[in-house]
Amino acid sequence: MTIDTAELPDPDGPEDRPTPAGNPGWLNEDELSFVRGRIPIVYVEAVPVRLNGLGQVSEVGILLRGTPEGEMTRSFVSGRVRYGETLREALFRHLENDLGPMAFPQMPAALVPTQVAEYFPMPGISQFVDPRQHAISLVYVVPVTGTCNPRQDALEVTWMSPEEALSASTQLELPGGRGVLLRQALAAVGC
Amino acid sequence: MTIDTAELPDPDGPEDRPTPAGNPGWLNEDELSFVRGRIPIVYVEAVPVRLNGLGQVSEVGILLRGTPEGEMTRSFVSGRVRYGETLREALFRHLENDLGPMAFPQMPAALVPTQVAEYFPMPGISQFVDPRQHAISLVYVVPVTGTCNPRQDALEVTWMSPEEALSASTQLELPGGRGVLLRQALAAVGC
Amino acid sequence: MTIDTAELPDPDGPEDRPTPAGNPGWLNEDELSFVRGRIPIVYVEAVPVRLNGLGQVSEVGILLRGTPEGEMTRSFVSGRVRYGETLREALFRHLENDLGPMAFPQMPAALVPTQVAEYFPMPGISQFVDPRQHAISLVYVVPVTGTCNPRQDALEVTWMSPEEALSASTQLELPGGRGVLLRQALAAVGC
Amino acid sequence: MTIDTAELPDPDGPEDRPTPAGNPGWLNEDELSFVRGRIPIVYVEAVPVRLNGLGQVSEVGILLRGTPEGEMTRSFVSGRVRYGETLREALFRHLENDLGPMAFPQMPAALVPTQVAEYFPMPGISQFVDPRQHAISLVYVVPVTGTCNPRQDALEVTWMSPEEALSASTQLELPGGRGVLLRQALAAVGC
Repeated sequence: MTIDTAELPDPDGPEDRPTPAGNPGWLNEDELSFVRGRIPIVYVEAVPVRLNGLGQVSEVGILLRGTPEGEMTRSFVSGRVRYGETLREALFRHLENDLGPMAFPQMPAALVPTQVAEYFPMPGISQFVDPRQHAISLVYVVPVTGTCNPRQDALEVTWMSPEEALSASTQLELPGGRGVLLRQALAAVGC
Repeated sequence: MTIDTAELPDPDGPEDRPTPAGNPGWLNEDELSFVRGRIPIVYVEAVPVRLNGLGQVSEVGILLRGTPEGEMTRSFVSGRVRYGETLREALFRHLENDLGPMAFPQMPAALVPTQVAEYFPMPGISQFVDPRQHAISLVYVVPVTGTCNPRQDALEVTWMSPEEALSASTQLELPGGRGVLLRQALAAVGC
Repeated sequence: MTIDTAELPDPDGPEDRPTPAGNPGWLNEDELSFVRGRIPIVYVEAVPVRLNGLGQVSEVGILLRGTPEGEMTRSFVSGRVRYGETLREALFRHLENDLGPMAFPQMPAALVPTQVAEYFPMPGISQFVDPRQHAISLVYVVPVTGTCNPRQDALEVTWMSPEEALSASTQLELPGGRGVLLRQALAAVGC
Repeated sequence: MTIDTAELPDPDGPEDRPTPAGNPGWLNEDELSFVRGRIPIVYVEAVPVRLNGLGQVSEVGILLRGTPEGEMTRSFVSGRVRYGETLREALFRHLENDLGPMAFPQMPAALVPTQVAEYFPMPGISQFVDPRQHAISLVYVVPVTGTCNPRQDALEVTWMSPEEALSASTQLELPGGRGVLLRQALAAVGC
């Protein structure tokens, strides 16, 4: 699916796809293109963190993805919420997809997210840009306790200190305004 | 628009509609029906409250709507977020639409909502049901300081004490599980 | 310490006490009595919960304590924050004290609590009463993954469904207004 | 009261004092010194902001105080919670004291603060330092709609854009780690 480039919050790559048969929430490219031009699309995003024994953030995980064009770019765990899928199911599915089955995320007890981010196709409407669509993203900070082995080929998790995550150089590597979003999300957990 | 009955979080009545010309976010009935069966639809909902001088909730506003079938039903301020519209614009538009131009709502400084509610067309997936669609609703408690004069014909605002709002009889009058949602939203403001 | 009865959020029992030597935060009975009559005392409280794999609350833990007078009463994990102790340290200490060393609580990543409760010695000022003192309590919902074996003699943890926790009979068993507080705290996690 | 220097979150100046007669929460200097060395002291802090019509932060207010030593320093609205006083009463009292009677603050409907800050007398325990005491501060972002005329002599409110408030130079002017706290508090309102 060529329109899914690295700037997008959701790769929606082949592995992320259900088989179309019988799932009303599966959209072919034309249909996805249609809805993306007509209504806001719901996303969940997650910033994986490691906590020390008292709950303080010791490390922040940032994904490194390869784009179809061969560039590398930083991103969060991220993806679309499907028709008929709960937010928890979508969050868990994308965590597993992006971090692997051994990450053992601590799923949030509350559905209220840490931040809400609005992405628009054109800059200036909000702090966040997604050239593909108008997306409304519920952003969670999710502690993980296991080992992260991204399932998709061009994907790694880089662990860094909160200070490094908040540094100007990391902020600049996050496209679409996600540097600001990372700062806002980490603020809620005392970083 | 006949499919908008009282069970729906958003009347999307005529007054609520933009003219279609040039607005990619306007959907005709077929298109709306298509997207409602394919992806989750984003809503904002608001529980209007009156505060005393120290910020404590003194009254809770519940809307009374007439359905196309002539029944009366309770609801919150509620409506869809349009393509290209920010959450704040959508929230303000629906507050004005449902409470009138003199309600003077105190718009929230934070986008993170008080509650997130997931509505599904079939019961049992979550606590909330919307026969029309899979809706993801960001729910805000919004203080109002002015006079509420709903613009739409069959609509009134009933003000009640927090105790009355939390009573079993009020809970039962709110369709689709919104009695639980009202309780959850008011809990965040100490009721 | 006879003034510590079951109505109090913090037993501050012998096990909970540091040795006085060298700790400026240790208070003898006269000093504790003095400060309790002069300034608000900071408490942390925790509602232990069990989550399913997607993060939804499946069970709520309520403590059963024996009072010095031989009565049984319900309570939360609860206790005072000592001078020089961080909120996380205090929360962890009281969780371990009340649930045992094998409870494996998931410490919150954020310091902002689920609820803030104000207890006053006399009823009518707020929803919550503590005959001993003016206490300001930061209340957290804390998932536990291990086995709870309260360390103190007259103490058990009763696990119940969210519905049972919200029932009128459970609410009534919680003294000092904590039935309302339990309802408010559980609302934040979708119950 | 000479121990109240600019580093302190609460000036507790003469105007801020009740008359001692009959108020058990009034502390003379010896008593205040005693409790400050023995238990954490509860504070409320407020970051005043101005909102645009949709609720977005347009300006941030920072106080400029003169210290007894003749230095100028930046601070938030801040002060101690007295015995017998609710958090709302304390917040309102300090807002009125620091911003004047015509500031018309929008008191928060929820008691749960935007951030919780822990101040310790010695650096390294948390991000925040208060040489006077161990303070636990509930921090609120409070929209004001009126005119701010600080009542105390050496006090002004400087209004600045969110960008300016987040700039390195402003951060450095805020003592005790409050630059970080300001960043964290503003993150919650989308700055």
